[in-house]
Amino acid sequence: MNCSVAQTLEVVGEWWTMLIIRDCFLGVTRFDDFHQRLGISRNILADRLEHLVERGVVVRVPYQEHPVRFDYRLTDKGRDLWLVLTAMRQWGDRWEAAEGPPVIIEHRVCGHETTVVPCCSSCGERLDARSVRAMAGPGSRSRPADEILPPARPA
Amino acid sequence: MNCSVAQTLEVVGEWWTMLIIRDCFLGVTRFDDFHQRLGISRNILADRLEHLVERGVVVRVPYQEHPVRFDYRLTDKGRDLWLVLTAMRQWGDRWEAAEGPPVIIEHRVCGHETTVVPCCSSCGERLDARSVRAMAGPGSRSRPADEILPPARPA
Repeated sequence: MNCSVAQTLEVVGEWWTMLIIRDCFLGVTRFDDFHQRLGISRNILADRLEHLVERGVVVRVPYQEHPVRFDYRLTDKGRDLWLVLTAMRQWGDRWEAAEGPPVIIEHRVCGHETTVVPCCSSCGERLDARSVRAMAGPGSRSRPADEILPPARPA
Repeated sequence: MNCSVAQTLEVVGEWWTMLIIRDCFLGVTRFDDFHQRLGISRNILADRLEHLVERGVVVRVPYQEHPVRFDYRLTDKGRDLWLVLTAMRQWGDRWEAAEGPPVIIEHRVCGHETTVVPCCSSCGERLDARSVRAMAGPGSRSRPADEILPPARPA
């Protein structure tokens, strides 16, 4: 499917994957630590980590030789998932956390508790769903327009 | 799992769900239109829509009486997924769109092409993974700390 959301889901859309990524951001690097924290089978964890390595989201770094053992660390591509993860956390905090946010985030620079406010890369004002519109981009070439954007339906 | 990312995945983490949400944002409201655009089975589509209705992300609005037919429309809770969806799209555009972004976004207010820049709700400066730190929040009460945040490991 010619869609960047679908492409992202191909990389991180399997069950458990975003929770593995979350733990990477929290500093977890070792197979046994992921296994213990997530409580998933070793097979599934190994499968998800292998996929993330193949897609360049995490990299294996040996920390022991005999037998060889690896740390799993985020690449630049993996660290760039921070906004996806943060947006998921904020939505869960807002709509699904009856007892309040399990985790709060501090901005080291200003020292205050923070949430992400989405701002326009051009003018700096706050963005939301109603203030933007989608248009066909360069990657839509040679695709039927309604595969990218639906035809307008009369109200 | 006491984690807002996990809670979010419980609502929108199934395969296809975020693509249904994407199409909602693009103005698709009818079962047959989702079905045609996504190319998934009617059973799976019905299952995903039912789950989204149960969790308050979309609402059914009748548009025809005999037989009764529904539009599926985002609720406020559903529209608040905009940042999750946008973050996924931007990541896919950056890392997985060899031919360029299939869709570009215009900020209606300033009239320019835009991407979301994550800014601090407190000081307004740009946020990223390295400029923030996670701390236990009010929803972490009565949970072992290392279920929320891992213990520090000596380097």
